[in-house]
Amino acid sequence: MTERLTLHEDPRSGNCYKIKLTAAMLGLPLETRQYDIMLGETRTPEFLAHVNRNGRIPVLQIEDSGGQRFLPESNAACWYLATGSELIPSGRFEQADMLRWMFFEQYNHEPNIATLRFWLHFIGEAHLTPQQRDQIVAKRVAGCEALRLMDEHLARGEWMAAGRFTLADIALFAYTHIAEEGGFGLEDYPHICRWIDRVQALPGFVPMA
Amino acid sequence: MTERLTLHEDPRSGNCYKIKLTAAMLGLPLETRQYDIMLGETRTPEFLAHVNRNGRIPVLQIEDSGGQRFLPESNAACWYLATGSELIPSGRFEQADMLRWMFFEQYNHEPNIATLRFWLHFIGEAHLTPQQRDQIVAKRVAGCEALRLMDEHLARGEWMAAGRFTLADIALFAYTHIAEEGGFGLEDYPHICRWIDRVQALPGFVPMA
Repeated sequence: MTERLTLHEDPRSGNCYKIKLTAAMLGLPLETRQYDIMLGETRTPEFLAHVNRNGRIPVLQIEDSGGQRFLPESNAACWYLATGSELIPSGRFEQADMLRWMFFEQYNHEPNIATLRFWLHFIGEAHLTPQQRDQIVAKRVAGCEALRLMDEHLARGEWMAAGRFTLADIALFAYTHIAEEGGFGLEDYPHICRWIDRVQALPGFVPMA
Repeated sequence: MTERLTLHEDPRSGNCYKIKLTAAMLGLPLETRQYDIMLGETRTPEFLAHVNRNGRIPVLQIEDSGGQRFLPESNAACWYLATGSELIPSGRFEQADMLRWMFFEQYNHEPNIATLRFWLHFIGEAHLTPQQRDQIVAKRVAGCEALRLMDEHLARGEWMAAGRFTLADIALFAYTHIAEEGGFGLEDYPHICRWIDRVQALPGFVPMA
């Protein structure tokens, strides 16, 4: 049996898009099963028992002769798909430096830029809890700081790591190119804007649904 | 010139300890340069210009005949040190699954458990901003949820990934074993307690400063 890959996803999620973009760049077939996170479809007893006890998408399901396995965490799923490919540099420092930007994405970028997009674009400011509303300014400042760091970094090179397009670019592209849906204007970050153009011009690129 | 490794650190940081524990388990010599994050020593113009524009420790400095390079992000620095060693499984799924728990650590665990430890143990509740104080309950709930997931996972196996001690254990051990400093009682998580004992019994283990 050849490997069969299924992505458990919500198409509005940038974390899910990372995995679809990685698969597309590598020419890997990927089936999808869709959930509506707004309706709590990833918190059902069935999802928690069989797909991800953490109640989150994306999850990459991998089926082969060894059985069925589930891999949560978007950047880990991208790593699985890209193992042995050009999307992961083989040099020791370059590989670690690529991971550095992927951890930066999950720690400094996603919790600010993706969360504000979710709150403002999908939930709507009027429906936020007081605790969420109190965090908007801090997340705005931290998100701008993450974009500033990326912009300064891209002023010194075309790609985030290893001097070429890698998983670090995919991980950061996902929520950066739609940051305006979270109220982040990209016009202040000219190097990011040109990098977005470069990513979108790559052979095999697919846009977010 | 052989490689010379210097860790830019604050010894109170669990993120810095991850790198020291990785180096110790591998028998790698590691020099340290210490900063006091409470005094803003990682936000000076010199630090920002030469060590990390993100103003954060840890940063692993690597010097060899090719010059001097800086690697921020604790889990990326651990990856660099452990490349080619037993601390990173070579199987495709096992490697991605190890990274899955390292991304989980940075996204679900550290921002709750490490942040509450920093706020309550080092800054002190009386000195928090109103915005920080309003987040305590949410971070308490999310931190307990991360510990519950770890405990359930460790009920089914001795280690976090690949059936043996890997970087995933190091990454999660750092702030878990001192979670009580953030007000998290570990007595509700018996599998975590036994896993902490197993880690501390490993040859080469070094305690946090």
